[in-house]
Amino acid sequence: MKSLQDNCGVFGLYSETECVHDIFQGIDFLQHRGQEYCGIATYDEGIRLITHYGKAANTFRDRELDYLKGNWGIGHVSLRERQPARWRSQLGEIAVAFGGNVVNADELVEEMKSRGRAFYDGYNIELISKIIMDEPDIVAGICALSKKIKGAYSLVVLTKDGIYAARDVYGFRPLVLGQGPGRYVVASESRALQNLEMELVRDVRPGEIMLINGKGFQTLEQLDSPRTAHCAFEWAYTASLDSIIDGVYVQEARNHLGGSLAERDMDEGGLDVDIVAAVPMSGIGHALGYHKRSKISYQEVFLYNRYADRSYTQSNQSAREKMAKRKLSVLHNAARGQRVVLCDDSIVRGTQILYKVRDLKGAGAKEVHVRIACPPLMYPCDFGISTRSYEELAARQYFKTGNIASMEQLRELEALIADQIGADSVKYNSLDAFVSALGIPGEQLCLKCFDGLDPTESR
Amino acid sequence: MKSLQDNCGVFGLYSETECVHDIFQGIDFLQHRGQEYCGIATYDEGIRLITHYGKAANTFRDRELDYLKGNWGIGHVSLRERQPARWRSQLGEIAVAFGGNVVNADELVEEMKSRGRAFYDGYNIELISKIIMDEPDIVAGICALSKKIKGAYSLVVLTKDGIYAARDVYGFRPLVLGQGPGRYVVASESRALQNLEMELVRDVRPGEIMLINGKGFQTLEQLDSPRTAHCAFEWAYTASLDSIIDGVYVQEARNHLGGSLAERDMDEGGLDVDIVAAVPMSGIGHALGYHKRSKISYQEVFLYNRYADRSYTQSNQSAREKMAKRKLSVLHNAARGQRVVLCDDSIVRGTQILYKVRDLKGAGAKEVHVRIACPPLMYPCDFGISTRSYEELAARQYFKTGNIASMEQLRELEALIADQIGADSVKYNSLDAFVSALGIPGEQLCLKCFDGLDPTESR
Amino acid sequence: MKSLQDNCGVFGLYSETECVHDIFQGIDFLQHRGQEYCGIATYDEGIRLITHYGKAANTFRDRELDYLKGNWGIGHVSLRERQPARWRSQLGEIAVAFGGNVVNADELVEEMKSRGRAFYDGYNIELISKIIMDEPDIVAGICALSKKIKGAYSLVVLTKDGIYAARDVYGFRPLVLGQGPGRYVVASESRALQNLEMELVRDVRPGEIMLINGKGFQTLEQLDSPRTAHCAFEWAYTASLDSIIDGVYVQEARNHLGGSLAERDMDEGGLDVDIVAAVPMSGIGHALGYHKRSKISYQEVFLYNRYADRSYTQSNQSAREKMAKRKLSVLHNAARGQRVVLCDDSIVRGTQILYKVRDLKGAGAKEVHVRIACPPLMYPCDFGISTRSYEELAARQYFKTGNIASMEQLRELEALIADQIGADSVKYNSLDAFVSALGIPGEQLCLKCFDGLDPTESR
Amino acid sequence: MKSLQDNCGVFGLYSETECVHDIFQGIDFLQHRGQEYCGIATYDEGIRLITHYGKAANTFRDRELDYLKGNWGIGHVSLRERQPARWRSQLGEIAVAFGGNVVNADELVEEMKSRGRAFYDGYNIELISKIIMDEPDIVAGICALSKKIKGAYSLVVLTKDGIYAARDVYGFRPLVLGQGPGRYVVASESRALQNLEMELVRDVRPGEIMLINGKGFQTLEQLDSPRTAHCAFEWAYTASLDSIIDGVYVQEARNHLGGSLAERDMDEGGLDVDIVAAVPMSGIGHALGYHKRSKISYQEVFLYNRYADRSYTQSNQSAREKMAKRKLSVLHNAARGQRVVLCDDSIVRGTQILYKVRDLKGAGAKEVHVRIACPPLMYPCDFGISTRSYEELAARQYFKTGNIASMEQLRELEALIADQIGADSVKYNSLDAFVSALGIPGEQLCLKCFDGLDPTESR
Repeated sequence: MKSLQDNCGVFGLYSETECVHDIFQGIDFLQHRGQEYCGIATYDEGIRLITHYGKAANTFRDRELDYLKGNWGIGHVSLRERQPARWRSQLGEIAVAFGGNVVNADELVEEMKSRGRAFYDGYNIELISKIIMDEPDIVAGICALSKKIKGAYSLVVLTKDGIYAARDVYGFRPLVLGQGPGRYVVASESRALQNLEMELVRDVRPGEIMLINGKGFQTLEQLDSPRTAHCAFEWAYTASLDSIIDGVYVQEARNHLGGSLAERDMDEGGLDVDIVAAVPMSGIGHALGYHKRSKISYQEVFLYNRYADRSYTQSNQSAREKMAKRKLSVLHNAARGQRVVLCDDSIVRGTQILYKVRDLKGAGAKEVHVRIACPPLMYPCDFGISTRSYEELAARQYFKTGNIASMEQLRELEALIADQIGADSVKYNSLDAFVSALGIPGEQLCLKCFDGLDPTESR
Repeated sequence: MKSLQDNCGVFGLYSETECVHDIFQGIDFLQHRGQEYCGIATYDEGIRLITHYGKAANTFRDRELDYLKGNWGIGHVSLRERQPARWRSQLGEIAVAFGGNVVNADELVEEMKSRGRAFYDGYNIELISKIIMDEPDIVAGICALSKKIKGAYSLVVLTKDGIYAARDVYGFRPLVLGQGPGRYVVASESRALQNLEMELVRDVRPGEIMLINGKGFQTLEQLDSPRTAHCAFEWAYTASLDSIIDGVYVQEARNHLGGSLAERDMDEGGLDVDIVAAVPMSGIGHALGYHKRSKISYQEVFLYNRYADRSYTQSNQSAREKMAKRKLSVLHNAARGQRVVLCDDSIVRGTQILYKVRDLKGAGAKEVHVRIACPPLMYPCDFGISTRSYEELAARQYFKTGNIASMEQLRELEALIADQIGADSVKYNSLDAFVSALGIPGEQLCLKCFDGLDPTESR
Repeated sequence: MKSLQDNCGVFGLYSETECVHDIFQGIDFLQHRGQEYCGIATYDEGIRLITHYGKAANTFRDRELDYLKGNWGIGHVSLRERQPARWRSQLGEIAVAFGGNVVNADELVEEMKSRGRAFYDGYNIELISKIIMDEPDIVAGICALSKKIKGAYSLVVLTKDGIYAARDVYGFRPLVLGQGPGRYVVASESRALQNLEMELVRDVRPGEIMLINGKGFQTLEQLDSPRTAHCAFEWAYTASLDSIIDGVYVQEARNHLGGSLAERDMDEGGLDVDIVAAVPMSGIGHALGYHKRSKISYQEVFLYNRYADRSYTQSNQSAREKMAKRKLSVLHNAARGQRVVLCDDSIVRGTQILYKVRDLKGAGAKEVHVRIACPPLMYPCDFGISTRSYEELAARQYFKTGNIASMEQLRELEALIADQIGADSVKYNSLDAFVSALGIPGEQLCLKCFDGLDPTESR
Repeated sequence: MKSLQDNCGVFGLYSETECVHDIFQGIDFLQHRGQEYCGIATYDEGIRLITHYGKAANTFRDRELDYLKGNWGIGHVSLRERQPARWRSQLGEIAVAFGGNVVNADELVEEMKSRGRAFYDGYNIELISKIIMDEPDIVAGICALSKKIKGAYSLVVLTKDGIYAARDVYGFRPLVLGQGPGRYVVASESRALQNLEMELVRDVRPGEIMLINGKGFQTLEQLDSPRTAHCAFEWAYTASLDSIIDGVYVQEARNHLGGSLAERDMDEGGLDVDIVAAVPMSGIGHALGYHKRSKISYQEVFLYNRYADRSYTQSNQSAREKMAKRKLSVLHNAARGQRVVLCDDSIVRGTQILYKVRDLKGAGAKEVHVRIACPPLMYPCDFGISTRSYEELAARQYFKTGNIASMEQLRELEALIADQIGADSVKYNSLDAFVSALGIPGEQLCLKCFDGLDPTESR
């Protein structure tokens, strides 16, 4: 539905008992981070591995879970890569899974090919694994990785000694530690812990390399971090509403972003409307924040189709698209005659929101005021969020170069976008308002898609 | 999630062009009315029929849709029966599908068996079809049906002449007519029309027998209706939020039911709470009505798992239950320290709501006040909603016989239920309040699950 | 490969223990009688039924076999119909399966439709079942069946009392009784018994109606049989080489048919050839008989592809045909420079044998003399062997009407066929030689495809 | 059924038109060389690859064949490894498939691991590919391979330039070249060519490295071959009866081996028996040779179940074994009262032949004389035939060390084996007789499983 997509979730568990059912449920709770592939590897005198094309709940069979014996293991969900990958190397038998993106993958692959290395399927996981396995031990391997690759990663490595976990030095992607009776866990998001009745211990620190086994959590190495650069989109869109990312509740963050939009409306003279509404599911947290701050009544104007995350058997493209477009039904009755504030997290190409505005107007809404939690998207993301090229970003159509430097420029853009999508008004959070609403210092965030500043480049 | 389940949706379409893709999408939009079986029959010099175990979107393949040629056809989704059924009889080749329930099926089967009729698989559809096919033509058959069977049905019959559609004389189950350029349609719910860009024309009348073909809609017969008895649960729970059932918007009905609960709270001295929340998805419409009327802020305290309607590959019962229970995650942050009004549509056994109250308290909610849109369920349903036996109804544990006749009795029950589920308070809409909020005269509704009065029995 | 195809195998078992695994293996051993559908029904307080599209070994899963509880049951394999069929009727719950063909099905269906009966899917099994269930008990039902239907059937009916078994009054299709410790069985062919380590007791007699249960075999009724008319093709082609049909070993019968061809060659001056060979698999028994009688060395000149009974995943018709044609590879080395007697059971259209002769000549065979166990096929079969229309029978191209009445006529035809298929000579067994080699009086055989005489019509 | 199993077949095709359908059929004709995995890679601006678990005919779908575009490609069938493998390396994008076995795989893997190479799944194909890709070009890679690995291989490598093909310097496994109009092909066995209507050109020579493309066949390198060592089992058992391996017809070879056994019987005083028979399918070629030489009549005493190569859906081990044992039915009638010479290719553990002798005696055979084409198996195979350990070889039970050096020792062993399996007599071909019957000089054969001499070790 949204063209912003994360591409991975990782999960690792050390348990006093068989681990596979918890890992299976763990990756099921991370399924929103990647729906195309899933996999589980466990350690039981050697590595047992099963991967699938499809969602975990739809693909893993009983006898496969039975096969995955052992007390520790790792799991993965992904949009693009079949993981974990299992390797036999000088480091013994290991399995590797990661979430993130390697910006300089092509260069690194070429360099390794020139040294005689061959690549099986060209996935990032193969590159990452080979860089690690080039070194004498796993910690050295992860250190080498951090020097060579430009990009974001949250990594788990399964070995006979337990599970190694690491987060890149910028901390782009989330990675948390949790624990329960006799269980130690590492996961991309805290929601997996909560739902498995484990407690969130803390986030893995940027640059931290850990070993998780029967002795609990051990920090084996702390790499220097030039700066922290958490992906701001995790709170605004990617992460699940019930997660806590780097200490900040996702739901609260979204409420504040919506509240900030309400405040701007109030500051700018107030907005005389009947209801606050959301584009489900991405806009709900923001809309409820707007409602809370503005006291304007909240109402649903779209119905999210409960069977929308289905997998179609039809290969017919046009039929599938037709169905996909109907993921949201308009609630005519709720929209008719109303002046609506419609909240969503962001505008990428502007097509989705245009359809939504058109739907509401078609249903008789008198006014539709679009409010967007994120500042305008001006740059593609290199670090694991699959945004498109410049040409596809709506804001870039009007603002060919540079950044939006003032409220005047922002207002100018908002007017043009409102025109494009047929809304009565459009407002974004300015970058300052956005950062301030998140409550995290801007210098600890990656805001590259808004301001173009690459946090990995020194300034 | 809920133990109240409808068991069928029907769809019929006459088109100037190939009909199958619209029928496929039509039943996909009715999938919430039954998730176990689906089927499509079309007419193309004879009847083409394909049925599946599973949901329409997951089971129908391209080549099957290609096979289903013809300009008119019918479709079906169901919890229990594979339909449509195709027959060769003195009426020619026909296909039949229905939604509803035959209360006196066993008697009728025995009677027919004694006359030498044999039954293939014992489904209601076979009984219904045979009663129709015993008569010289389809209209006579449906007339006979209406005399013989006690129960609810919305029926479509596919023939070489077009699609016959009929609704039982009480109008228990919804059935609507719609139309678009060159297309005439009959469907269990209006949402299918809206999403296929057709207009709702009107509801099929109780006892009306229609023929739908190139000439449009024709009423062939209007059977006498002793009274109307629309199932009140359609508005409160069964139907989709974006449907209009017998002229009443489902979303509006739910808003009014929630509003009625708010009003009672206000009349009874006001309720000092922080937020209004819902048990997703069933309680959202009601909660938003409560919020609107009370002006208390609406907030989400549970997260509905987007992949919750999945089909598990694991046959392991305990694992599946574990996963199913985790369909809703608690949003700790939103619940902590809050006094919450929690709305849902109804209480059946009380187990689900008990878990929800426990979840909120576990997350730190200071108070949880449960508000239920329907009056207490006191009787099992005979007309197609699969409620359980008396023993399983929570209210019946405390009120062994008879009905709740006064507000005192209701308050007494509410205190007992609050105690059972650990809530700070519980309030239901009284039957009077419920009917009045729906805005439909009580004598046009079937309220048997609340008051035990069977609308098909003379009084 | 051959366009003569039987269409059913039936199996019934009463056991002192769970019956399903023996039934599963029983139908697996009858799989050569029909490869498209299979099914098993067992009795366990009621009838449990599972049918499949595909072969038994490829389709029945463990949990399905587990579900099919009970000590008695029936099974079925078929080319065209999903069986057994389960019914609830005045006779209680029953399941019915049959092998054979109903010649006057259309008339009977029309007659029943005019009496208000409706047909679900139009299969013969539905008609047969309904005729039985129209009567007050099963024996009366089978009696009625024998009067009404013109055609062949071997029938099993599963009830709470055990398994009813019946064979039509002509005994067209085989049906045998067998027994082992605590087990009583009825099956289309004795090979199922032998491989299940049970003993062949006897054939069910034409017109015999039996009940098989804990008391063993009981003859409930013996209908008058105007005459016996065993299908002669069973010995020549249909039945498995390891079966005994109506007291005659199939392998021995084929050896005798081949021997008879050798004798004719010897009588007619001897045939100066190097080797005897067969078209696998259908011609092997005949070729070995020719070899035995003639003392000419036997050699294989075709290789039967071990994976030939595969099911192709490709839907592409031309690709499948290409593959199918290559079911037999030529053994060039064995054919080169040889004068070959090539035996097969029969010639239908002549296409297959033409390809085989061409293959051998292409591989360098000096001479190819085709010897055919059956007399020329002159009439289509009505009783369950799916032969084609007159137009498709090779012999009918040359002999437009009437029968082959003399050896002169036969030789004339043989010369024409030899010409057509490019063989150096062709010889068939004459009808007299055929019957005499089988060792069964001609008046006990159905020879309609050779002489056109319908055994069910009085003469 | 037999515990001797080859493990691969390779196929490569350069065509003027789309190549995939011929490759698909090519591997289908090689399916007897490996039934667990199959795969096809084609070149079309890059490598397209699809592999499957299962047989080619059962797994490849239309749309997959459609996807495999291009004019040249390779295919593979295997018992143990998913192939071809696709790689990106300094040699560009390539796909590799091989048949054979690497004896020193573990050592080589360790050596490469110590140099920092990591292995994805531990298959031989990965090792072979990496050795090749370590070198600057493919020819150099194959040269390096031939130096490093001890073992047997027939190899195809798909590149943008065409298909490289190579055979190890001993020529263990067969590999042939063929051609048709506009098509050049390389395949494990000539049967694939014959059935695709292409002509056999010649065998690839041991140590030859070729390139196949639009220019036809080019020999790029001819490695020195210390000696030739064709696997003798190919003619006796592995290859298909319709293939020609290194210039010798498989069928003829088997006929000669059977003839040699007959000769020994005649030399040793003659054997007074009624019929010669075979254990299908492996013994047929041998039995027909015995029959031809001895003039004793050939008869079938077992029926090979046409559906025996099925894949069972049941996971139940005991049920599957039960079914598997019944792959051959005894033809009671043919065996009863007969004195039988029963031919087979070899005896591994002796279990299968024991069951067969028991079956015949149970059916009433008066005498059963077992004749085995191969000499006694005394050593496990290292070069790609999956024989078991010493302990499992029947002959080794009696002859604990050393070789059978004289006819006396052979007769002694034969008596012991006859006793073990309940036969009236057992005779093997002596090693001399075996080699002489094959008509290939012993120094060009690998006979290690008989004499223990490893052809790769200098003597």
